[in-house]
Amino acid sequence: MTKLWGGRFAKPTAELVRQFNDSLRFDLRLYNEDIDGSKAWATAHVATGVLTADEAVTIHHGLEQVRAEIASGTFTVAAGDEDVHTAVERRLTELVGSVGGKLHTGRSRNDQVATDFRLWTKRACGDVLAHLRTLQHALITHAEAHAAVPLPGYTHLQHAQPVTWGHWLLSHFWPLVRDAQRFEQALAQADESPLGAGALAGTAFPIDRAALAAELGFGRASPNSLDAVSSRDFAADFLYASAMLGLHLSRLAEQLILFSTTEFGFVRLDDAYSTGSSLMPQKKNPDTLELTRGKSGRLLGHLLALLTTLKGLPSSYDKDLQEDKEPVFDAYDNLLIILPVMSGVIETLTIRPERMAAQLEPNLLATDLADYLVKRGLPFREAHHAVGEVVQLGEQTNTPITELSTAALQAIHPLFGADVAEVLTVEYALAQRRATGGTAPEAVAEQLAAAKKLLGSA
Amino acid sequence: MTKLWGGRFAKPTAELVRQFNDSLRFDLRLYNEDIDGSKAWATAHVATGVLTADEAVTIHHGLEQVRAEIASGTFTVAAGDEDVHTAVERRLTELVGSVGGKLHTGRSRNDQVATDFRLWTKRACGDVLAHLRTLQHALITHAEAHAAVPLPGYTHLQHAQPVTWGHWLLSHFWPLVRDAQRFEQALAQADESPLGAGALAGTAFPIDRAALAAELGFGRASPNSLDAVSSRDFAADFLYASAMLGLHLSRLAEQLILFSTTEFGFVRLDDAYSTGSSLMPQKKNPDTLELTRGKSGRLLGHLLALLTTLKGLPSSYDKDLQEDKEPVFDAYDNLLIILPVMSGVIETLTIRPERMAAQLEPNLLATDLADYLVKRGLPFREAHHAVGEVVQLGEQTNTPITELSTAALQAIHPLFGADVAEVLTVEYALAQRRATGGTAPEAVAEQLAAAKKLLGSA
Amino acid sequence: MTKLWGGRFAKPTAELVRQFNDSLRFDLRLYNEDIDGSKAWATAHVATGVLTADEAVTIHHGLEQVRAEIASGTFTVAAGDEDVHTAVERRLTELVGSVGGKLHTGRSRNDQVATDFRLWTKRACGDVLAHLRTLQHALITHAEAHAAVPLPGYTHLQHAQPVTWGHWLLSHFWPLVRDAQRFEQALAQADESPLGAGALAGTAFPIDRAALAAELGFGRASPNSLDAVSSRDFAADFLYASAMLGLHLSRLAEQLILFSTTEFGFVRLDDAYSTGSSLMPQKKNPDTLELTRGKSGRLLGHLLALLTTLKGLPSSYDKDLQEDKEPVFDAYDNLLIILPVMSGVIETLTIRPERMAAQLEPNLLATDLADYLVKRGLPFREAHHAVGEVVQLGEQTNTPITELSTAALQAIHPLFGADVAEVLTVEYALAQRRATGGTAPEAVAEQLAAAKKLLGSA
Amino acid sequence: MTKLWGGRFAKPTAELVRQFNDSLRFDLRLYNEDIDGSKAWATAHVATGVLTADEAVTIHHGLEQVRAEIASGTFTVAAGDEDVHTAVERRLTELVGSVGGKLHTGRSRNDQVATDFRLWTKRACGDVLAHLRTLQHALITHAEAHAAVPLPGYTHLQHAQPVTWGHWLLSHFWPLVRDAQRFEQALAQADESPLGAGALAGTAFPIDRAALAAELGFGRASPNSLDAVSSRDFAADFLYASAMLGLHLSRLAEQLILFSTTEFGFVRLDDAYSTGSSLMPQKKNPDTLELTRGKSGRLLGHLLALLTTLKGLPSSYDKDLQEDKEPVFDAYDNLLIILPVMSGVIETLTIRPERMAAQLEPNLLATDLADYLVKRGLPFREAHHAVGEVVQLGEQTNTPITELSTAALQAIHPLFGADVAEVLTVEYALAQRRATGGTAPEAVAEQLAAAKKLLGSA
Repeated sequence: MTKLWGGRFAKPTAELVRQFNDSLRFDLRLYNEDIDGSKAWATAHVATGVLTADEAVTIHHGLEQVRAEIASGTFTVAAGDEDVHTAVERRLTELVGSVGGKLHTGRSRNDQVATDFRLWTKRACGDVLAHLRTLQHALITHAEAHAAVPLPGYTHLQHAQPVTWGHWLLSHFWPLVRDAQRFEQALAQADESPLGAGALAGTAFPIDRAALAAELGFGRASPNSLDAVSSRDFAADFLYASAMLGLHLSRLAEQLILFSTTEFGFVRLDDAYSTGSSLMPQKKNPDTLELTRGKSGRLLGHLLALLTTLKGLPSSYDKDLQEDKEPVFDAYDNLLIILPVMSGVIETLTIRPERMAAQLEPNLLATDLADYLVKRGLPFREAHHAVGEVVQLGEQTNTPITELSTAALQAIHPLFGADVAEVLTVEYALAQRRATGGTAPEAVAEQLAAAKKLLGSA
Repeated sequence: MTKLWGGRFAKPTAELVRQFNDSLRFDLRLYNEDIDGSKAWATAHVATGVLTADEAVTIHHGLEQVRAEIASGTFTVAAGDEDVHTAVERRLTELVGSVGGKLHTGRSRNDQVATDFRLWTKRACGDVLAHLRTLQHALITHAEAHAAVPLPGYTHLQHAQPVTWGHWLLSHFWPLVRDAQRFEQALAQADESPLGAGALAGTAFPIDRAALAAELGFGRASPNSLDAVSSRDFAADFLYASAMLGLHLSRLAEQLILFSTTEFGFVRLDDAYSTGSSLMPQKKNPDTLELTRGKSGRLLGHLLALLTTLKGLPSSYDKDLQEDKEPVFDAYDNLLIILPVMSGVIETLTIRPERMAAQLEPNLLATDLADYLVKRGLPFREAHHAVGEVVQLGEQTNTPITELSTAALQAIHPLFGADVAEVLTVEYALAQRRATGGTAPEAVAEQLAAAKKLLGSA
Repeated sequence: MTKLWGGRFAKPTAELVRQFNDSLRFDLRLYNEDIDGSKAWATAHVATGVLTADEAVTIHHGLEQVRAEIASGTFTVAAGDEDVHTAVERRLTELVGSVGGKLHTGRSRNDQVATDFRLWTKRACGDVLAHLRTLQHALITHAEAHAAVPLPGYTHLQHAQPVTWGHWLLSHFWPLVRDAQRFEQALAQADESPLGAGALAGTAFPIDRAALAAELGFGRASPNSLDAVSSRDFAADFLYASAMLGLHLSRLAEQLILFSTTEFGFVRLDDAYSTGSSLMPQKKNPDTLELTRGKSGRLLGHLLALLTTLKGLPSSYDKDLQEDKEPVFDAYDNLLIILPVMSGVIETLTIRPERMAAQLEPNLLATDLADYLVKRGLPFREAHHAVGEVVQLGEQTNTPITELSTAALQAIHPLFGADVAEVLTVEYALAQRRATGGTAPEAVAEQLAAAKKLLGSA
Repeated sequence: MTKLWGGRFAKPTAELVRQFNDSLRFDLRLYNEDIDGSKAWATAHVATGVLTADEAVTIHHGLEQVRAEIASGTFTVAAGDEDVHTAVERRLTELVGSVGGKLHTGRSRNDQVATDFRLWTKRACGDVLAHLRTLQHALITHAEAHAAVPLPGYTHLQHAQPVTWGHWLLSHFWPLVRDAQRFEQALAQADESPLGAGALAGTAFPIDRAALAAELGFGRASPNSLDAVSSRDFAADFLYASAMLGLHLSRLAEQLILFSTTEFGFVRLDDAYSTGSSLMPQKKNPDTLELTRGKSGRLLGHLLALLTTLKGLPSSYDKDLQEDKEPVFDAYDNLLIILPVMSGVIETLTIRPERMAAQLEPNLLATDLADYLVKRGLPFREAHHAVGEVVQLGEQTNTPITELSTAALQAIHPLFGADVAEVLTVEYALAQRRATGGTAPEAVAEQLAAAKKLLGSA
């Protein structure tokens, strides 16, 4: 057997065109889904009368044999194998004879590939979700272990207010919760069976498409055959979820890279998650974090690639759609290594509380000093201005604001009392922020409980 | 009053830097949300004791006065008005005196702007959804009116199989259903109150954040203050939903542009939705469709702009985040004109069934000819090959395949009978595809019913 | 020998991290460049005294042996081979002994990989330029063969004014001229030797970097070592040139797809450049053109991927930069098949002048009718309006504007004379546009001459 | 006067469609270019005989009056003013009467807008180049002032080898040299006159397009009229140059943000280039740098927006092209504030050599220690390994590698001598890297000289 088509052609395809068009090199990985889809299709054709029950059994056995050959690496690609569909059907027919030629009745590669790709994407979403959950678990565990360790909080990368390690680390947990929702939404979009849409207009055989969908584990059959062969929304949703996850990880990675510099020195990456230099013997580099950050570009690029390809296409099938799979496969392959690597990084990360403590300078308490005045009745706006002067005085006299004399403070505003220094401590500042979501140890404990409950690991 | 900060600064901001940093020119449109948020914040501070009930009333009245001034265009921008928050608080304090200076207690512009932007985005999602629904309604109405009109269906833009106008038009309805889901998901992501997250570490006042969230109509309060001021996922979700909607509309537009060419001539755009040429007097151009198609680039660009800006940012607030609003505003503004324009295009579109009919050439029935052989017991793969030869014979002899003699057909395959010509009609081909989602008039009727039910307009 | 580093590490790298970090799977294709660079480096170290002339010869021979092994497929990857540099050096040392360990003196993988990648990119630009030239040649040849065949010209995809096939086809030649300029600019950017920049600070050995650059065929040595190891501008330039080329080809493909529809029918793709359907026996699909159009998404995605990865990186080397090569390799591999396929499409394309002629309807001459009035002294703006009325009259009376009676025309404007019909022909309209760049046959002949001269094939 | 077209339309444009289509709100800024183009067109039509010399003078005067009205803000927009071309021609005709109606003879808005936009882009490139030059000058001046101040050099953001401030700062100069080349290339692409291309097919009047191009300051006339109205390559080139510049500035900004943290503390931003916090009185934030970094997303988004819009468009004019100008305008407006702000940041930046010095830890000299062994004859690979052990010993014994005893060193490798400590200094390490492009003060001096020469400011 050669091509699935060609009867009407007077001239063979140019060899270069064959290479250009063929997709087997990347779509062979859909073989399980392709075989599952074909088995279900054969079953459905017993009801339509196209196949006898015996023929369906023969086809099923043949397909399982093809699956075994591919899985074991003994499958041999033939010259006309354009894609996974052709390859499987060709080999099936070799194995079972001309009954194999009945399998494609009322079906097109257009609905077939959409079915395969949706089945694959559903599984891919499940895989990503499992790895995501492991990373979330690692974050929670690490956050809980060091929940109340204080460190400077930053805005604009400048010292802002003290926070705790548990609070900071959990700030990278919640974005992953949203990422998981996006993968679940992508999965829900993929969960629609195009099989029976034919080339574009529907199948001319009385297939029960709802039953067929259920047989394949789909939640529903697609309601419009043109849209069924045309839509790649589910792939875009997968790539968008991947891109957002990549961005969130790039932000976590960026901060851990900063925190592991000599200058910050807040964390130490485990040797097993670091690498060295071919030239500089002293180097210990956070390559794992850098690659994670860098790969956010690739994930975003894949999203753009697919969306640009889809732009301006007519509905129904155009060959442009063949460009849909490689970005999704590559995004998946990368996430399936990025996620466990990041889990390992977090699980083995050492924090250095003494280095964090060394950076807890009094200016971090300036907001609390303003709040002190507010609690004594001063409108906040005036309190803010007064403390601004205190900070400036501290800088000019090279004195920490916690060590300025009461007289000096009162010269700026009479509401400052002798108790300023005793009130102005990191512990005090942390403890004040106990409203929901705040950095106070008791609020972080509540947050941890919520995170664990959400993850089902409370 | 000048800036909200500056006490610690020895030197004024460079004028150019002021222009660079200030966001009032684009964020003033958040004034309603900013005022709503401030009113709720004042109410919450009655419970904390920072404000008396009377002070809160004074602030509420003052804020409503500011709102009225902005709404009526009598509001005057002052030199230090960096952004909507500064402008509103400055004017409030002018109106109500120093009690206005108490409003910002325990709050930061970081949680304030996130609150404003989320409130705005929730409303924006609602607006887009309403316009989307109108367009969906227009598609259903038009599809129903011409449900069974046959035209060629295309794959690869080549004649494939006959479909009906109703079926084709509904293939552009279902993508919009998915788009609506995405806007609902964006809305759900936005539906979380950051207020009370402070600058990054939480507020030091005993604010009941859950009650505050409810007061503002939010579904929940954010669980982590760092994430609350840092996350722009909801904006990215809005832009992704916009980009996907833009792509779907680009595909509809592309096809209507093709269908309105002289060569296709399947549809006529209404004069009210077309434009002319400054040079060529005969021109009637589908500018509305072309702009809709073209704007898919802008919508995609906005998504990528925000995602690139977010890449590698630490958590908590960085000034880079100020770049979040303009792409969202512009996407919204464009969708709010694209959608009603497209609704108008569809509502006023004229179809030309006679031009469609003229293109219903016999080759469109080749699949049905193969199915004819299948129904006589030939495996599909062999039937496909035989019909390929039929098509080639037709081309070589310049004869439509429906007019080839029985003898000629039987020379190709003996299973061809004398009834071929009577079976091979467009009506027959359409009617065969009556499985769910197919193009048969009865299947399209079911599809229409499902679409109407989904839209709640059955 | 194991890793190039590790002396300071107490714990081995996690296996998953190794997989994550290693780049050999994609950078082995740089082996020729890596070996060329190492040979030049060894030569340079004879002058510094690090190597004796004999040692350099030994290393050169060893490197050529490694090259031969890789080229012939007999090279065996070892466990510690992280990347092409490690693999080559490891094998070299196995072959030549400890003198191989001297090669990396004063060099880092940071300058080494930048050197390899620049050498590769220079060659890649040359390859693309050669294929581009072939395609340009095909366009010129086809344009010349059918230079004066008239067809409708379109704006907004509506009939606008007649043009000639030669003119139309050449409109796709000139964008490729600009693309060639961009690849030449990318080549010029790549033409700078980073070798001797070390890890970031320069080499501590007295290497003559200018001589070394010349030895490798580079135009110059990089002026700043930090920039030398950090910059990937040349790769971005390559990807931008690729993306623009992809867009230009997507526009050519789009139009040929339209022109090969049943409705237009202006061109026929050769069977060798078309493919069929697994379901519909009559189909002949322009897959080659669709894939070309679709791959513009991939090429654009690669550009975005690299640019996003670069965003916000410090200067000097970060591991994120390892993400630079795969997009460039994939863009190159795709262009090297897209370009010859498109050349083949053009070389074998058949045009159907009779189908073009059938579409040359009189409305295409409306501008010329306005010009007729202008030449009789009417201001153009009034002439345009008058002809608009003529077109409307034609539509209302279902009469081509060339067949309206002189009386009817004069009722619209008295300047219309009896000679209108004789003037209003396609030949006349074409001939008028003889200013430079116009569609008149004589102007197209000049254009062809200019194009051929530019391509050096006059 | 109303629209420039409409004669053939039976029904008015829908009001919403008018808003959708009209571009005056953003293209009015092209008025100078539009008027220059029209004046040149009028002049050209004296030669063709369409206008008398007197009429041309009348039109010129009228156009200058329109220019004066727009420049002074006294211009009133009329209902039918779709775009700058319509508005200018409408007002011209009001001012000079029906002779104004002759101006559009043989011209289309398609060639007119391409001309305007190219003229504008040429000027925009010039403006960006001027500001770029100022920033380059600021970098050179600052680099020269602190050329030899040592600080740690980083790879992977880990301490690598010492570099000098001058060297580091100049690493951000050379990327701007490449950016300037890209803007020059964009300018060269824009430097082609489309005027006389008409709507698509060329003008039917004997315009001397080369002379017309020269009159407008263009380097050449476009060689193909279809390409002339269709190509937006010059705009894409401008946006690509902008995106690359944005990326380079994001990298400079990122590092200065790091260097201005409390933990690094290497630089202090001037108060005039910093801003404060509405809540935290002590804050001094590098907003200018953060916005610069963040805006790289916007610039990249604009590039992708235009490229996506262009994807798959036929050649010649489609309305999608109206989406070309806003991204270019916005990129220009942003660059024209980013660049002077960054110049100001650099000009006023204070460096803190004592903080840099405090970070110059001995491990930064590990490469030099390996080189020490190399110079005593050890192959580098072995030297690298030995020094790795030295570093590990230092870490384990908490001893700087410069203070390890000779005995301890010799226990690791016998080639270590008693002179290690005296050789291992930052000054020594810097001085060794004197090959071209290295960080040695003498090499940096040569680099500075080259940079100044290139900038023409030696």
